[in-house]
Amino acid sequence: MTAAVKPARAAVIGGGVIGGGWVARLIQNGVDVGIYDPDPEASRKIDAVMTNADAALGKLTMAPLPRRGEMRFAGSVAEAVAGAELIVEAVPERLDIKQAVYAEIEAAAAPDALISSSTSGILPSDLQAKMDRPERLLVGHPFNPVYLLPLVELVGGKSTSAETIERAAGFFAGIGMHPLRIRKEIEAFVADRFLEAVWREALWLVKDGIATTEEIDDAIRFGFGLRWAQMGLFETYRVAGGEAGMAHFIAQFGPCLKWPWTKLMDVPELTDELVQAISDQSDAQSGMHSIRELERIRDTNLVAILQALKANDWGAGRTLAAWETALYDAVPAATATDDTDQPIETMRQQVPAAWTDYNGHMNEARYLDCFSMATDAMMRRIGIDADYLAAGGSFFTVETHIRHLDEVTAGNEIFATSQVLLGEGKKMQLFHHLYADGADGPRLLATGEHMLIHVDMNSRSSSLPTDEVAAKLAALAAAHASLPRPDGAGRAIGG
Amino acid sequence: MTAAVKPARAAVIGGGVIGGGWVARLIQNGVDVGIYDPDPEASRKIDAVMTNADAALGKLTMAPLPRRGEMRFAGSVAEAVAGAELIVEAVPERLDIKQAVYAEIEAAAAPDALISSSTSGILPSDLQAKMDRPERLLVGHPFNPVYLLPLVELVGGKSTSAETIERAAGFFAGIGMHPLRIRKEIEAFVADRFLEAVWREALWLVKDGIATTEEIDDAIRFGFGLRWAQMGLFETYRVAGGEAGMAHFIAQFGPCLKWPWTKLMDVPELTDELVQAISDQSDAQSGMHSIRELERIRDTNLVAILQALKANDWGAGRTLAAWETALYDAVPAATATDDTDQPIETMRQQVPAAWTDYNGHMNEARYLDCFSMATDAMMRRIGIDADYLAAGGSFFTVETHIRHLDEVTAGNEIFATSQVLLGEGKKMQLFHHLYADGADGPRLLATGEHMLIHVDMNSRSSSLPTDEVAAKLAALAAAHASLPRPDGAGRAIGG
Repeated sequence: MTAAVKPARAAVIGGGVIGGGWVARLIQNGVDVGIYDPDPEASRKIDAVMTNADAALGKLTMAPLPRRGEMRFAGSVAEAVAGAELIVEAVPERLDIKQAVYAEIEAAAAPDALISSSTSGILPSDLQAKMDRPERLLVGHPFNPVYLLPLVELVGGKSTSAETIERAAGFFAGIGMHPLRIRKEIEAFVADRFLEAVWREALWLVKDGIATTEEIDDAIRFGFGLRWAQMGLFETYRVAGGEAGMAHFIAQFGPCLKWPWTKLMDVPELTDELVQAISDQSDAQSGMHSIRELERIRDTNLVAILQALKANDWGAGRTLAAWETALYDAVPAATATDDTDQPIETMRQQVPAAWTDYNGHMNEARYLDCFSMATDAMMRRIGIDADYLAAGGSFFTVETHIRHLDEVTAGNEIFATSQVLLGEGKKMQLFHHLYADGADGPRLLATGEHMLIHVDMNSRSSSLPTDEVAAKLAALAAAHASLPRPDGAGRAIGG
Repeated sequence: MTAAVKPARAAVIGGGVIGGGWVARLIQNGVDVGIYDPDPEASRKIDAVMTNADAALGKLTMAPLPRRGEMRFAGSVAEAVAGAELIVEAVPERLDIKQAVYAEIEAAAAPDALISSSTSGILPSDLQAKMDRPERLLVGHPFNPVYLLPLVELVGGKSTSAETIERAAGFFAGIGMHPLRIRKEIEAFVADRFLEAVWREALWLVKDGIATTEEIDDAIRFGFGLRWAQMGLFETYRVAGGEAGMAHFIAQFGPCLKWPWTKLMDVPELTDELVQAISDQSDAQSGMHSIRELERIRDTNLVAILQALKANDWGAGRTLAAWETALYDAVPAATATDDTDQPIETMRQQVPAAWTDYNGHMNEARYLDCFSMATDAMMRRIGIDADYLAAGGSFFTVETHIRHLDEVTAGNEIFATSQVLLGEGKKMQLFHHLYADGADGPRLLATGEHMLIHVDMNSRSSSLPTDEVAAKLAALAAAHASLPRPDGAGRAIGG
């Protein structure tokens, strides 16, 4: 198993849908990215991808995200790749263009920087043919939307070193992906050969009037598409074959291969008439949604499917879970020398649009989301990390009191500060203030008072924290004892 | 739109995986089914499918299910089909066997009984060639597992009447499926042509050592498989094409069709060696799970994916929602004179997977989500509807007190009951109890006490509700005044 280690710094050359998707995934994972794209619209296009990616991320995980990476638009390839450990190429699918870009990269990049091409089908041996250090080039073929779909196909060419593939696998795993090493190079690799096969057949079906684009999509998404989100072809058929096993299944299915069940032997000509028919049918099917709307629908569905699979500990859901575990692990345990003579800032973010309710403001339940994040940050501060959880200890909230003092709308920056009111034995009592930040200074939105009890995660009953955690909590409680008692502490409803 | 009307009575001829799946779906939807299969093991095999199907159904929906249909094993085709409106044929894929079965069916069935073949690829014109009443035969091609996947392809032959297709669509929609009418008959219809194309290509990839069965499955389920569960081929590409539109996308993609991206023109020979290689790889990939385990894993994933899509009102999730709506509609409506002398049930749902946090249980913030829903339900109860909001009135929560008393995990059913503690002037004070439901009765998870103030949505300051809302609130408060004061009301943190 390759160690997941995200790159210290990356560059993305080409800012289209795929390049923008790479930028979003890298930035969200805390990697600084230099970008080069000669298109004057590149910045606007990447902003649009980032907006989608942030909306999706907000729904995807509750794990503590790293400080966001910085995005830097460069004036040249050389400027973009300076200092990058990983250089992602996502320029148009033409060998001459890609080779020219590699020459520019090699002239400026660190000699051991990894160069990963996003090509969907060109052979890496061809890509690296004119390079000075071809051993560091590989194909890392992602799938749209890059910020949500975990698959990346890794393909080496004749000159690619084994170390390059290994390092790339580590980098991609480090930013939450599932690197799949393809054993031999072949045009279109694996996934796109299937897409290509289905695409050919689909063109024939439309051309021959067997089905419209919508009917073809329905034939996929109401049937085998639901199977393929979790198992692929062989595992699905293994199940279908039953106890008799895979060889029996193939023996049964085999003869069908001789039947006239395909028009794949030939390629339909893309006449103007066929293109128009497809375009018209697609308009009838999806034209009621703008492309932006369809992207949001797609992303919301993908998030929900990924979460569903995560809950079942399966497939792409496992990739998500592994990534979240790494995020929890990456949060530094409390250092002894932090400023503890004032409330600690424990969360800061923008109010997502999805947090707005029918009253046009952040929904009441989201106040507790904020306080929950603040509580998590305090727990990490006293040494509750992934190892501690795995060893069976945690704090559970047993009581919450919120004063909803002011409203806030989507897009505003909010932050919380936290202080310990009590920290002894099994008990931890916290008090959070939630503020909206703005030009006129912070505006108090709410206060949250919370009683937590330490639990043994195996027996699910109360228990004492470890001595180390108890000591850190006691130290923080002692430091905060000198702070004024917050307004509203100890209050009851209507009191 | 075809009216969904499930058949009064059905027969299934053939009790394999597909026949058993049909039996399960029909029975679960309250349809009595006669079954014929000469295999002495048929009953045991159908029981195994029913066990899976019932486990899946228990997780799939909370809607009120109809009285279960009766399953009757018959000693002959004639006995099975007696009185059936819908006769499903699921016997082996040989034209002569199927035609012989139709002859037996026609000799005994009602003259207008519908005959639906489950064939994956044989043309309905061939199937019906020797029938007395060929107009009533169609192909209704389902997908495994039939009790979960909604797709059924409807294909008529030369002699099939339009009325037959229409009736079949109604029957299948009536048992929660998505009938897809295929416009012209063609071998393998639509979905299986795609599966066949991918299967051919996959065989080459294994044969040539490009990828193992597991790697091929991963290339599907970590990437485009996640897209295909929700959108199909064309809608996905429409999004990928961006604002430039579908015609632009095709123009871009078109040239690839000329590239050597496929071996589909030829069929790999299924040598013993290749069959063995696939079988061995499949064992290495999935052999740690029995087929029964894989079936349960598959079904649990499918349920989660269907629910995820339902929450987003999309694709197969819509089919599920429509089926549930019909189930709810089938239950007599509550009378207008609701009980107000006890707390009111204000929310009920399953805990979504995404509500789970690192402690392995429903996150603390989700408790307030539940109470927020309960508060909304109480607001609707006293006349706060979309019109009222549009006219500028609403209640805002100003204070929340939660006692988190017990934990709950994803998939459990939870519900809330609510009572009014105070309802006068601008104030509304509510008290909610949140429970997990289960075989042993309700288990108290939390209580929520909430103070709300009526506001003028334009000035965002407090105001009196309309007389109508005030009167409804006062009436509910008066009715609830006789209820015992809930345990924990008026409590402060640590109090």
